[in-house]
Amino acid sequence: MEPEAPLKDTEEAGITHNCGVFGCISSGEWPTHIDVAQIICLGLVALQHRGQESAGIVTSKGEDTKRFSMHKGMGLVSHVFDDHAMMKLKGNLGIGHTRYSTTAESEALNCQPFVVHTQHGALAVAHNGELVNAESLRKKVLDRGVGLSTMSDSELITQALCLNPPEGEHEGPNWPARIKHVMKLSPLSYSLVLMYRDKIYGVRDPYGNRPLCLGKLVPVKKRNHIIQPKLEDDIEGWVISSESSGFLAIGARYLREVEPGEIVELTKHGVKSIGIVERPEDKLPAFCIFEYVYFARPDSIFEGQVVYSVRMQCGRELAKEAPCDADIVSSVPESGTAAAHGYSRQSGIPFAEVLCKNRYVGRTFIQPSTRLRQLGVAKKFGALLDNVYGKKIVLIDDSIVRGNTIGPIIKLLRDAGAKEVHIRVASPPIKYPCYMGINIPTREELIANRLDPPELAEAVGADSLVYLSIGGLISAVTYSIREKDPKKIGHCVACLSGQYPEKLEW
Amino acid sequence: MEPEAPLKDTEEAGITHNCGVFGCISSGEWPTHIDVAQIICLGLVALQHRGQESAGIVTSKGEDTKRFSMHKGMGLVSHVFDDHAMMKLKGNLGIGHTRYSTTAESEALNCQPFVVHTQHGALAVAHNGELVNAESLRKKVLDRGVGLSTMSDSELITQALCLNPPEGEHEGPNWPARIKHVMKLSPLSYSLVLMYRDKIYGVRDPYGNRPLCLGKLVPVKKRNHIIQPKLEDDIEGWVISSESSGFLAIGARYLREVEPGEIVELTKHGVKSIGIVERPEDKLPAFCIFEYVYFARPDSIFEGQVVYSVRMQCGRELAKEAPCDADIVSSVPESGTAAAHGYSRQSGIPFAEVLCKNRYVGRTFIQPSTRLRQLGVAKKFGALLDNVYGKKIVLIDDSIVRGNTIGPIIKLLRDAGAKEVHIRVASPPIKYPCYMGINIPTREELIANRLDPPELAEAVGADSLVYLSIGGLISAVTYSIREKDPKKIGHCVACLSGQYPEKLEW
Amino acid sequence: MEPEAPLKDTEEAGITHNCGVFGCISSGEWPTHIDVAQIICLGLVALQHRGQESAGIVTSKGEDTKRFSMHKGMGLVSHVFDDHAMMKLKGNLGIGHTRYSTTAESEALNCQPFVVHTQHGALAVAHNGELVNAESLRKKVLDRGVGLSTMSDSELITQALCLNPPEGEHEGPNWPARIKHVMKLSPLSYSLVLMYRDKIYGVRDPYGNRPLCLGKLVPVKKRNHIIQPKLEDDIEGWVISSESSGFLAIGARYLREVEPGEIVELTKHGVKSIGIVERPEDKLPAFCIFEYVYFARPDSIFEGQVVYSVRMQCGRELAKEAPCDADIVSSVPESGTAAAHGYSRQSGIPFAEVLCKNRYVGRTFIQPSTRLRQLGVAKKFGALLDNVYGKKIVLIDDSIVRGNTIGPIIKLLRDAGAKEVHIRVASPPIKYPCYMGINIPTREELIANRLDPPELAEAVGADSLVYLSIGGLISAVTYSIREKDPKKIGHCVACLSGQYPEKLEW
Amino acid sequence: MEPEAPLKDTEEAGITHNCGVFGCISSGEWPTHIDVAQIICLGLVALQHRGQESAGIVTSKGEDTKRFSMHKGMGLVSHVFDDHAMMKLKGNLGIGHTRYSTTAESEALNCQPFVVHTQHGALAVAHNGELVNAESLRKKVLDRGVGLSTMSDSELITQALCLNPPEGEHEGPNWPARIKHVMKLSPLSYSLVLMYRDKIYGVRDPYGNRPLCLGKLVPVKKRNHIIQPKLEDDIEGWVISSESSGFLAIGARYLREVEPGEIVELTKHGVKSIGIVERPEDKLPAFCIFEYVYFARPDSIFEGQVVYSVRMQCGRELAKEAPCDADIVSSVPESGTAAAHGYSRQSGIPFAEVLCKNRYVGRTFIQPSTRLRQLGVAKKFGALLDNVYGKKIVLIDDSIVRGNTIGPIIKLLRDAGAKEVHIRVASPPIKYPCYMGINIPTREELIANRLDPPELAEAVGADSLVYLSIGGLISAVTYSIREKDPKKIGHCVACLSGQYPEKLEW
Repeated sequence: MEPEAPLKDTEEAGITHNCGVFGCISSGEWPTHIDVAQIICLGLVALQHRGQESAGIVTSKGEDTKRFSMHKGMGLVSHVFDDHAMMKLKGNLGIGHTRYSTTAESEALNCQPFVVHTQHGALAVAHNGELVNAESLRKKVLDRGVGLSTMSDSELITQALCLNPPEGEHEGPNWPARIKHVMKLSPLSYSLVLMYRDKIYGVRDPYGNRPLCLGKLVPVKKRNHIIQPKLEDDIEGWVISSESSGFLAIGARYLREVEPGEIVELTKHGVKSIGIVERPEDKLPAFCIFEYVYFARPDSIFEGQVVYSVRMQCGRELAKEAPCDADIVSSVPESGTAAAHGYSRQSGIPFAEVLCKNRYVGRTFIQPSTRLRQLGVAKKFGALLDNVYGKKIVLIDDSIVRGNTIGPIIKLLRDAGAKEVHIRVASPPIKYPCYMGINIPTREELIANRLDPPELAEAVGADSLVYLSIGGLISAVTYSIREKDPKKIGHCVACLSGQYPEKLEW
Repeated sequence: MEPEAPLKDTEEAGITHNCGVFGCISSGEWPTHIDVAQIICLGLVALQHRGQESAGIVTSKGEDTKRFSMHKGMGLVSHVFDDHAMMKLKGNLGIGHTRYSTTAESEALNCQPFVVHTQHGALAVAHNGELVNAESLRKKVLDRGVGLSTMSDSELITQALCLNPPEGEHEGPNWPARIKHVMKLSPLSYSLVLMYRDKIYGVRDPYGNRPLCLGKLVPVKKRNHIIQPKLEDDIEGWVISSESSGFLAIGARYLREVEPGEIVELTKHGVKSIGIVERPEDKLPAFCIFEYVYFARPDSIFEGQVVYSVRMQCGRELAKEAPCDADIVSSVPESGTAAAHGYSRQSGIPFAEVLCKNRYVGRTFIQPSTRLRQLGVAKKFGALLDNVYGKKIVLIDDSIVRGNTIGPIIKLLRDAGAKEVHIRVASPPIKYPCYMGINIPTREELIANRLDPPELAEAVGADSLVYLSIGGLISAVTYSIREKDPKKIGHCVACLSGQYPEKLEW
Repeated sequence: MEPEAPLKDTEEAGITHNCGVFGCISSGEWPTHIDVAQIICLGLVALQHRGQESAGIVTSKGEDTKRFSMHKGMGLVSHVFDDHAMMKLKGNLGIGHTRYSTTAESEALNCQPFVVHTQHGALAVAHNGELVNAESLRKKVLDRGVGLSTMSDSELITQALCLNPPEGEHEGPNWPARIKHVMKLSPLSYSLVLMYRDKIYGVRDPYGNRPLCLGKLVPVKKRNHIIQPKLEDDIEGWVISSESSGFLAIGARYLREVEPGEIVELTKHGVKSIGIVERPEDKLPAFCIFEYVYFARPDSIFEGQVVYSVRMQCGRELAKEAPCDADIVSSVPESGTAAAHGYSRQSGIPFAEVLCKNRYVGRTFIQPSTRLRQLGVAKKFGALLDNVYGKKIVLIDDSIVRGNTIGPIIKLLRDAGAKEVHIRVASPPIKYPCYMGINIPTREELIANRLDPPELAEAVGADSLVYLSIGGLISAVTYSIREKDPKKIGHCVACLSGQYPEKLEW
Repeated sequence: MEPEAPLKDTEEAGITHNCGVFGCISSGEWPTHIDVAQIICLGLVALQHRGQESAGIVTSKGEDTKRFSMHKGMGLVSHVFDDHAMMKLKGNLGIGHTRYSTTAESEALNCQPFVVHTQHGALAVAHNGELVNAESLRKKVLDRGVGLSTMSDSELITQALCLNPPEGEHEGPNWPARIKHVMKLSPLSYSLVLMYRDKIYGVRDPYGNRPLCLGKLVPVKKRNHIIQPKLEDDIEGWVISSESSGFLAIGARYLREVEPGEIVELTKHGVKSIGIVERPEDKLPAFCIFEYVYFARPDSIFEGQVVYSVRMQCGRELAKEAPCDADIVSSVPESGTAAAHGYSRQSGIPFAEVLCKNRYVGRTFIQPSTRLRQLGVAKKFGALLDNVYGKKIVLIDDSIVRGNTIGPIIKLLRDAGAKEVHIRVASPPIKYPCYMGINIPTREELIANRLDPPELAEAVGADSLVYLSIGGLISAVTYSIREKDPKKIGHCVACLSGQYPEKLEW
């Protein structure tokens, strides 16, 4: 029971993500040898860090049927999918979604996946991302005489997919053609998973802004050994997921990422690429750099790199850019630990834990006494005296957003006898909003827009405070892929630089 | 939202604690300058790891009154004490309790603190511990014509305190005399906090089996600076707590432990020792060694030692006793990390993280598919590939109780390419039940009673598995106090050795 | 606290209704002199018997805006609309809906009113009824490239209203033209309330199958006196409702029914009829006769008749058709009481209560002991001995659907010493399904399809059992309107006769 | 779903009761032929009107055991006893309790039955009533060195029963002697049901202030026929209950009342009277007259009279005392209906329903608009126009406590066109508090202390208003028992007259 754990460790709900998507298809017919719904459920649990507000799964027996099995609800995956719900979810293929919402209203209406009944039968859609320039697509759909129940991009994409194509363009359902049509109208940002009859489609936007990857389900022996199949025929199914973090838990092996602009089709026979929608000639990919810095689970793989190792690399770059004369390197648990280890390795200063975390921190009193207000929010942490008293500490945090939690931590360390406390931040200052699926506080709330590093050091009581540079961060996130085709490498740093992948409509 | 976080990380509810107690008294009269109820609430939050089932606070204005303010409820402290509840809790002194229960029935009835109305007015009682030989005390109370509502030791102690003393023994309430009387009847195990009128009494059993310590509330300035008072008069109040872990969060300074057998009295004027009930001549103290190993928060202080540092020391001892040829030392997060750092320092093998934890693990399916059953419970963890693949790993865990979670973790590491996985356990095998307030699985469930270390290594798929010896553990928990009076040092290792502090009645 | 009151008194969820709709518009601009949301909320409370599953209200300030205020939720009106919700609902016009659902799935998705964003702005829709022949309309909508989220007729109607009209037909929003277009495509059954900008539209299907009526809000003085306005200008607003039952509670005066096929427009200036869509020449109206028998609140008015008085009239007809030699007339409380009074007046046999109802009946045990199973479900009722013992009783019930509750009641009366128990049912046997918004058990569950009256009497242990004839029922429901234009009077008795107003598609 | 049904119909929580008690014992050994827990559960459902706050059942296998099966909880019986709870409740005897509480605090602590572990084993206690002069008994218990957890009389009685008897008085448990001892110390008011080993004791206070009666469980055949046993041996068990209202529902036959001051013992062999504790010579019984007027279920039997018939008799007396020139007699449903029928029979004026009740009334808005405040609380009722318009109505209510609901009802009838509305109240004005288990509003809240009948008529807008006299009420409640021994008849009318059965201590 830890009902009020913060979404983020160092700062109260600093930045939040929007969604995770997952799909699974068995290599067999219904009734199948694997429990697709359970695999999707575990897959969503492994994507839970991408959204904790609602969860949903839709499964199908893959027949020409109007009926899917569906269960959706508000709350964590483990809460939404009780045994009763699981038993209803029959099928040999299915998709799932986990979601963090920006809008408090009409919550239940926005739970995904969406299922729509179309003239060609039922279609299920799960979406991660946010359309940068949604207005023109929205107008196009409304003008065709369609009513939209919500302001959500996900419903908009769904209805856009249903629209009849222009005269003579293509016949029948032809979802790939419809998908390409919508991708051209709206190039950014989405990773989509769709289910229609016996197929799952995976779609990543032309800029590759949100992650999406593929895996194969391999046989499992008694006593937990996973057997690498000898032939393709031994594979038990395929999965598609926002991140690879859940693959080991379900006995899946990582295959590859879906490429920017690519549409893939999963059937019981395997995974097939069915086309790529290109970006404008002069544009590089724009994979969200904060997936590396902050959002993704450390064991996920992007562009062939383990996220944890990239974070260590950020620490190494930071040690190069901003060395520090200190006795120990430490971190704010648990967000900065990988970077702190990197900093320690690079600098040679030993790593030691200085803070322990109270897993049961609770709400803040509405009317705190003066005393408690002055004590601040340090109740989440305790200081490990022997590692703190009389020490010069360099403390690594992964990012600073609002800047309202680092101060109390520094005070706590000083109260515990720290001689010096130097802050090193393993990412650059965040200054600009994101329009591609991430909730960032307002400009005024972003501390980097109000205080420069020396001012911030002063404000939070640090002896010094240095951010990693944008160049250093880019260097870290490409540390093992620099030899790749440079036209295939590119990251969105809009929240740091203000340079967006596409010109904004407004 | 993390509603189903495990009580323990490596093993499903392996060992659980019973309770935490906390008391606070202001140095002023009501209405006082500090918010006693808020301080107690934060104090309980910092003791939440000692019990998550229910919580309660009783406050008083210290007058000669029949009325306390009380609020108790099932659940976490942050859940039980909403703003509405807090506003009712008026007073300049109060006590609190947080509890883990062994019995599912009559739960609400057992929430503490208990308040009893006696011929001398109202008395509030909070208890941590379990009476080893309760039967004779119970019979004594029943024979006096008192009905007991529950089988709980806490109610029993409370009614024993109320009993009229033998003819001519003492007059009036005289709680210290009553407390001593009960302590002699039943020497083990309890830490008690009582409130009567304008006083709080703290009591630790003669063996000092459960912890109890004292602190003083010091002034807090704006901007979070804590000011050491110049004179005793500047002190704002006093606190008494099972552990010192919450002291920094409330602006308190650690004073000292309550001694085994000691009764202390807290008033607005300060803390006073009002007597010690001695153990039998030939007996050493019996402070529960698992408070160091496992229960306590790492930032707490027992016998002058920081728990985290003791745990590191356990790792050092382990490295001496059971060295290992490995590339890296790591731990099962987060339970073995301190010991792993100690092992790393002692052995010179570098520490690296190999597992990341999914904070959102959920329930287990009632009817898992064969596939998932064979995959086991590894869904809680992901492997950090770069630190695992091709590596020889020595993995430190703090304890092994049931032995049902280490196997899947080893498999996960092997699936991720580990070359060797050696297990080192930073405590000795647990083989015997505890009758002093700790819930330990049955003998049959304790894996150490069924498999010796090589068998267990085989069973869980480890390349080797070694426990720390009892001698090594004792050496670690006394690493900085060996020079103290040896008659004052002693630890209960009954669950490891089967040697109990007092002869058991049955 | 009566959390499990049965939906119907005599038979467990025998027949259930679908929905109630309500709308209100102030005669002034926003901010207006009346609280529209509170009036709608009370209006829905008075329609709660028509649906207890979910409730919703949408309000608007009537400007050219995309934003409505909306609140919807699962549960009773009083549960859904707490003070927090009410405070959000601003506006000088609004509509509401209360719903009973047939489908357990996707419940929250189906809460009404629906709000859709169209090319012409936002439209809100509340619907009572069920489209008899929905398939063709559904195909039409899907073929236009619209995806439908649910199988619900209400969503279907909403999207049908949004569809672009055929080339050159009408320009702009023109909702009346769109409504007429949909009414022609699908003539049965619906009562609709729509809101667009500063207007509310009320629509009743051409057969008038579901009720819909109009009222005006009159001034209220202190001390609760309602003042009839002298001039139209004194009127404070207008309401539209499924039934008139709530009018007194909100200070409204009954105006008239919306006619079959009629569209009315409510603005701040008043109510205007804006057209009637005719039925086929040879067709009579088909107002659901069970609204009189069973669904409606007894104080509602249909066709100028008070429902309670019609039910008394059913009792009178029953006394004529099926006289009985008895000492007293009584009823199963509370469903048959009006008819019992009618039977008593007609027959001259005195009325007396013989049963009292336990308002707190609870659930049935999943595993009842043999004894309890044999005792049956009589726990809902107690017998009033003095009125039962030694008496010949004629017991009136309003309807018999499944026939599973009357037996235990007869046994109860016999156990209490009744000499004879004769059952008279104030409606004919129900034998056929309804496709117009009413949930009727399956044919096999309907007892009238399995047993004729003498067999049923035998089965339930009655001395005799007689139903009212269809002719008798029609005579009762037209008792005061026979002089009206016969082309304007007609009732749907499909569930009794199997004759449906329109030929069914399948 | 009717979660907010008022506890009383005509006035918001005007007067509320405290408790109902129930016990059952099988004629066989465990495992027995009847399901004792299910019978107790149904028995409590039939006593639910006596208390809706909490419910509890304790069962036993009747052995010399320390263990009872117990389940208690907050809420309605049907809510507290789910299937899971029922399955735990094993045994061939048991007792139950349903409770309305006056104090919001420590609710769960006060749920009954209480189980206490005594030197002689476990004892279970269920109590209905309130000790008039509790202070002396309380002091006696506290002085013996017992701590009391609550201020509740029920805990006090329980501990008083446990107290060791004075030297040499009686040996061993001897509960009857202990019960008599406590009865002499505190003569008023309680009905108690106790369980110890294989016996249930029933106790009624010497004044018979609260009801208590006995029944026998008779065999039930298939198809629901109850068979009167030929021999005592055929009886399947015995029950004891606050009221007989549930007897038919469980297949029990009414035996007799427990007499004032009587102690009965129920074993598997039958019911035995084991003594009577007498009242003072000069005192009559003091059975609460409001059990007849208001609290009891109409089908219950007290002193050989059916409650419903007594209420009709109240109406007859009222018609004699306060005739009225009217067209129809009616009632506020459902509280005044029996009296209205009596008034109608006596006066010859026909009875007709004028109000229908909305079963789904909800909460009142915290901030009602002026309009709604002026409309008042009439939303609970609708007027049946044909019976009201142009009519002179005499409206019967069973009692008037606060007087805040009759006004809006009269206004509603006038708005619906009533010509005259005369109020007749079937009980005398309530003016004094009750200290014997009934919650009555404060003197200031009791309207009869502020307005005499003509003033009240004016205030509520009635054409006239007359209460029944105390003499008339006494005449009604003795209508069929006047020939009995006059020393055995007596009723407490303290709330009407201010004359209490015993002198009050304060």
